Amino acid sequence: MGQRSALVVIGNEILSGRTVDKNINWIAEQMTGRGVPLTEVRIVPDIEAKIVEAVNGLRAEYDYVFTTGGIGPTHDDITAASVAKAFGVEFERHQEAYQVLLDYYGPAELTEARASMANMPRGVRLLDNPVSGAPGFALENVYVMAGVPRIMQAMFGHVLSEIAPGAAILSNTVFCDLQESLIAQGLRAIQDRYGVVDIGSYPSFRGGVLNVSVVLRGTDGEAIAAATKEVLALIDEKGGEIRSQSFQVDVGD
Amino acid sequence: MGQRSALVVIGNEILSGRTVDKNINWIAEQMTGRGVPLTEVRIVPDIEAKIVEAVNGLRAEYDYVFTTGGIGPTHDDITAASVAKAFGVEFERHQEAYQVLLDYYGPAELTEARASMANMPRGVRLLDNPVSGAPGFALENVYVMAGVPRIMQAMFGHVLSEIAPGAAILSNTVFCDLQESLIAQGLRAIQDRYGVVDIGSYPSFRGGVLNVSVVLRGTDGEAIAAATKEVLALIDEKGGEIRSQSFQVDVGD
Repeated sequence: MGQRSALVVIGNEILSGRTVDKNINWIAEQMTGRGVPLTEVRIVPDIEAKIVEAVNGLRAEYDYVFTTGGIGPTHDDITAASVAKAFGVEFERHQEAYQVLLDYYGPAELTEARASMANMPRGVRLLDNPVSGAPGFALENVYVMAGVPRIMQAMFGHVLSEIAPGAAILSNTVFCDLQESLIAQGLRAIQDRYGVVDIGSYPSFRGGVLNVSVVLRGTDGEAIAAATKEVLALIDEKGGEIRSQSFQVDVGD
Repeated sequence: MGQRSALVVIGNEILSGRTVDKNINWIAEQMTGRGVPLTEVRIVPDIEAKIVEAVNGLRAEYDYVFTTGGIGPTHDDITAASVAKAFGVEFERHQEAYQVLLDYYGPAELTEARASMANMPRGVRLLDNPVSGAPGFALENVYVMAGVPRIMQAMFGHVLSEIAPGAAILSNTVFCDLQESLIAQGLRAIQDRYGVVDIGSYPSFRGGVLNVSVVLRGTDGEAIAAATKEVLALIDEKGGEIRSQSFQVDVGD
């Protein structure tokens, strides 16, 4: 098995429904593109014990763990202290981070609240924040980033520089007008023949009618191409019509 | 502490970035409205061990656990069997569910793949599916629903009928043009004075400038009103301008 990643989203505002998370899908796409698939996500409230539990559970299981949210200057920003607790290390003023804040705000504007964003677990690597100054940080395989999407995305550039790319994850998608139950048996047989291809079947409504997208995903292009051909033949056999298709792997003719 | 709920989103398509989840925010809003806040969410892949781990972890900790996704007729729909495993009960044909499918499809159209959607853990309660026939189910405090938002939402009506409402969760929101670091110290002092109010500070970008929304949430309307007044005074003191506000609790004059 290749490298895998996980994400902890920290934020009462997501759990209350006030804010729609925009980071999960963005990070998922990034990591699929990197060949280090996002394999688990947890959304937890601003409660230290829940953050510690999620970070410690996931950092033991996955190669990389990302967190978003809770690293600002206010009383509800408890991520950095919680991560220190998770690792059992000191939570202290990081001198280089403090200097970054001093340069960004200037001495007159560097209030104690702002300076508190330089309090971090001992031993971290800083993640540059070209958008709003205060850096994120990484400790071992855990990357702690802001929740504001624009800031998180800016920090993620640095994160990617530390992640060795895995084998490219390729996918072919076929969208057709059949109900998935009509191709279920045939799909299972194709899945059984192509163990290295991850075949997903995703129903959706369009115009009040159930359709299905079949997604064939994996790192073995030849197997994906061969399995895709069989899926196309199956849909044709069942009288379905292809409404759209998107192929990263050419299936030939 | 009142009742709390949690959600397990089952689906490789969310984790790959192919699909943007629409169920988390919808369920979050429903449960906030019901007074049984959503307190944790896990997104897991279509892997039995991960589904079992998430369901068993959360059903022990929360009053209600919802799952979305993975209950269709195809080979990648493993939620029902995984929930049976999580509870340590038989996975078997549910006669009433089978009858529902028979009535919906008719004998000629009820293929084995479709009939497989009547395979459920022993002892479940059915959740009606007025949209596409195949019911969801509930076992003890776990509610297993479809992933397609329109079908999930239809099933959720039945789910809500089994959930006793908690105390109404009220919230006031103030959006102003200050950077949150300028009000951080004052907000912390207000939070310290109003322990029953959950005060959140959420920065955002608008027009390239950092602003902040302060959200005051809880079940004690009087405390929320008093704390909101103090937040308004704090913003005024710091020279901020209110850009918008949304009050469920009137703060008087």
